[in-house]
Amino acid sequence: MPSTQDIESIHMRDWRWSQAEKIAARRAFEQALHQDLDTVMRTAKERIAQITKPAELWDIEDWLGDQRRRIDRDYDYRYSVLPIVFAGMIRSGRLTENDLHGIDPAKLDIIRRIASY
Amino acid sequence: MPSTQDIESIHMRDWRWSQAEKIAARRAFEQALHQDLDTVMRTAKERIAQITKPAELWDIEDWLGDQRRRIDRDYDYRYSVLPIVFAGMIRSGRLTENDLHGIDPAKLDIIRRIASY
Repeated sequence: MPSTQDIESIHMRDWRWSQAEKIAARRAFEQALHQDLDTVMRTAKERIAQITKPAELWDIEDWLGDQRRRIDRDYDYRYSVLPIVFAGMIRSGRLTENDLHGIDPAKLDIIRRIASY
Repeated sequence: MPSTQDIESIHMRDWRWSQAEKIAARRAFEQALHQDLDTVMRTAKERIAQITKPAELWDIEDWLGDQRRRIDRDYDYRYSVLPIVFAGMIRSGRLTENDLHGIDPAKLDIIRRIASY
C-alpha cells in the first residue's frame, strides 16, 4: 500500500488535464465501461438461460445488484480520482497501459505505480 | 370494501382447520406459488434474451426485485390470514374456487365474499 506521504506527494487533485488528455481518458474510460457492461449482459443472458428452478432467479437478481453497485462504484469519472480509477482498471485487467495512450507519461507513471501496489 | 363490522364478524383468526382442509389449502397454495414463480422465470428468460443494451439489464433487475417482494408479500401461509390470501389469488386469477376443493364450504363462502369486494 502507498504511504500517506506517497499519496500526498501525488497531488492528483491539482493535476491539469489537457483537452487531448481528457479525450484520451474519456475514450479509455468508456471503452472499459462498455466492455464491462457487455460482459455482465452476456453472463446474465447465459446464466438465466440455464436456470431450471425459479429460486435460482433470486441468485441472479442478487448477482445483478452486486454488479450494478460495483459498476456504479468503480466507474467514477472525476479527474480528482481518475488516476486511481485507471489504476484499478489496469490491476483488474479491464484496461492495459496501451489503452491510456494520449495521457501524459508523467501521469501514466503514477497510474502504473498505484496499479502495482 | 368490507366494513370493520364485516371483518370482525368473520373471526378468521379463530377458525379451525381440519387436517384434510390443511392438506387442501397447502396444495392450492403451493400450486399458485409454483405457477407464479414459473411465470416470473419464463418472463425473465424471455425479457433478458431480447435485450441488446446493457442498460436494459437494470430494468430487468428492478423488475425481478419487484416480483420477489410481491411474492414474499402475497404468499403468506399463516392460517390467520389464509382466507385473505386465497381471496387475493382468486381475484388475481391465480386460483379458481375449484382449486380450493376440500376446504369447508362455509370458509369458501367467506373467501368468495372477500374476493368479490
